[in-house]
Amino acid sequence: MEKSILDYETLALDEGERALVIIDQTRLPGRTELLHLKTQEEIWEAIRKLKVRGAPAIGDAAAIGMYLAALEAEGAEEADFFQHLREARAYLDSSRPTAVNLMWATERMERAAEGAKGQGVAAILEVLRREALRIKQEDMDICEKIGEYGLSLVKKGDGLLTHCNAGQLATAKYGTATAPMYLGQKKGYGFKVFCDETRPLLQGARLTAYELQSAGLDVTLICDNMASTVMKNGWVQAIFVGCDRVAANGDAANKIGTSGVAILAKHYGIPFYVCAPSSTIDFSAQTGADIPIEGRPGEEVTELWYRERMAPKDVKVFNPAFDVTEASHITAIITEWGILRAPYEESLATLRKKCGR
Amino acid sequence: MEKSILDYETLALDEGERALVIIDQTRLPGRTELLHLKTQEEIWEAIRKLKVRGAPAIGDAAAIGMYLAALEAEGAEEADFFQHLREARAYLDSSRPTAVNLMWATERMERAAEGAKGQGVAAILEVLRREALRIKQEDMDICEKIGEYGLSLVKKGDGLLTHCNAGQLATAKYGTATAPMYLGQKKGYGFKVFCDETRPLLQGARLTAYELQSAGLDVTLICDNMASTVMKNGWVQAIFVGCDRVAANGDAANKIGTSGVAILAKHYGIPFYVCAPSSTIDFSAQTGADIPIEGRPGEEVTELWYRERMAPKDVKVFNPAFDVTEASHITAIITEWGILRAPYEESLATLRKKCGR
Repeated sequence: MEKSILDYETLALDEGERALVIIDQTRLPGRTELLHLKTQEEIWEAIRKLKVRGAPAIGDAAAIGMYLAALEAEGAEEADFFQHLREARAYLDSSRPTAVNLMWATERMERAAEGAKGQGVAAILEVLRREALRIKQEDMDICEKIGEYGLSLVKKGDGLLTHCNAGQLATAKYGTATAPMYLGQKKGYGFKVFCDETRPLLQGARLTAYELQSAGLDVTLICDNMASTVMKNGWVQAIFVGCDRVAANGDAANKIGTSGVAILAKHYGIPFYVCAPSSTIDFSAQTGADIPIEGRPGEEVTELWYRERMAPKDVKVFNPAFDVTEASHITAIITEWGILRAPYEESLATLRKKCGR
Repeated sequence: MEKSILDYETLALDEGERALVIIDQTRLPGRTELLHLKTQEEIWEAIRKLKVRGAPAIGDAAAIGMYLAALEAEGAEEADFFQHLREARAYLDSSRPTAVNLMWATERMERAAEGAKGQGVAAILEVLRREALRIKQEDMDICEKIGEYGLSLVKKGDGLLTHCNAGQLATAKYGTATAPMYLGQKKGYGFKVFCDETRPLLQGARLTAYELQSAGLDVTLICDNMASTVMKNGWVQAIFVGCDRVAANGDAANKIGTSGVAILAKHYGIPFYVCAPSSTIDFSAQTGADIPIEGRPGEEVTELWYRERMAPKDVKVFNPAFDVTEASHITAIITEWGILRAPYEESLATLRKKCGR
């Protein structure tokens, strides 16, 4: 029997080998290949080339990367050790300059080291080791909590639908939108999951369908434009999606196409849940209009090959990476602190106090 | 300057050469290649292999094919001539057994020949030639009428959106959903057209974007899941789609994804128009539930190649070719007889009397 993806986490610190172990996501779904990354350079390249991707997973990988980089200077004087650590941080930060979680994790690692200043390199290394594992553990705990809250909203045998990959592969374990699915799977819920393939980059087909199938869930792949039919057929009782950023009014930016799924869900009377670690809530954005949307190269749309090139030469392409789902289309926002309901201005403000931001 | 696709029709009878001339649609959008088909076998293969496709275009090609097949027997006695014609009809019908327009056109050709029985082979051949050209001319006239009615519903500078290919390439000229665009183009309307790429087979990217761009229209290709954003941005003032079958209550079956576009259009307050030659109205279907939906192989979804295979091995796939758009989401149905509005039971019944069905 093949190993389930739950048999290994998305990434792990191998302490004996002094290596970050990851699943090479660029080889999925064709091959499940583990990489053992020992040097800063190898980790930098793995983040840069999307071998590890997804905001929380990048943060986890960078934190472990900081620890492994620090180990390179274990024989140094403290002053040199800190110099080495600062250089490692700047270097790792440069692997994906727009990934907020990356900077957040390396900064937290450096702060932890600073807190142990003067205790000697060995003690500081131990602090760094524990901080890296804590960052990863917190990621897993957050996902598990989201999974438990999400699971409380559905029933055994339900049909679920998700868009893009807010899956285990984007985190250390469980994922966000997939967490209720994995926890339900353990408890014999017998979900039937529909995965939107998620054009143009097909994260739903390549990653979500892969990881859910590997874990033994009943998964069906559909093209994005089939979601309306699947909902109309009565096959979907709840929709779970992840998100990249939530504004203070509850508007949620997520992979392009999410807003359309939400409108269809509302039309068919199906609850639409956004799974959002509290770190994704951006209180400085009043509404979705304040969230910048990345435009990406048209080639992503035109250059998948279908016998020959599949779109006319020089055709104009509109290729936004994300869209904003209006708060009024969101049934609930599921965080690690609990399930938020409209009016989101109020429930998000309450959450803000609770988590001390 | 490159030739526009409007410089040649999708298909034509070359009388001197005794050939059916078509654009090889399997080479689009990479190459615009004209094929000169002289034998029954070549025409059979062109229909079979989708070198010519789209219900009206298949009917036109088969009609011309019947004439060319008949020419093969121009030296025969009448009885042998009719035997030859019947065999040609059965043979051509077998090229795409589910294409209703194919059978309709070959039957109409045989009936025309029967009507001239006893007048000699030369006279019958002339009847067949004229009938084939009439079938094609009627197709063009119907499309042009639909285009004129459609054009009356929009303004200069409007943004338009379409799904799949109900274009010129599916007919002899103009197409159905594209007819208002082509006629508007001639009159300087300056439309901005958005084409859904239309997964899984990408007819929007490969065919619609190609033919509109070739004709000089301002066309932007989008993934199906970007339609919501394009509408929200205020870039779309009207949506035109084709249809495969309209039920007596106005429910319309069309390429998978159409129903979702209609729901989004309703949400954003954008008129949604179904372009339907009266031949697509099926009065024997009370509602959309009576229209059978073809399920197609999952490989269409999983086997487009993206570096490696882009979906996990053995993943379940749901791949319906069509969906049904509910009449309540359709702003108007545009036929060659005029623009129909809700309640469609009444407007369609009136149309039925008008066109004597």
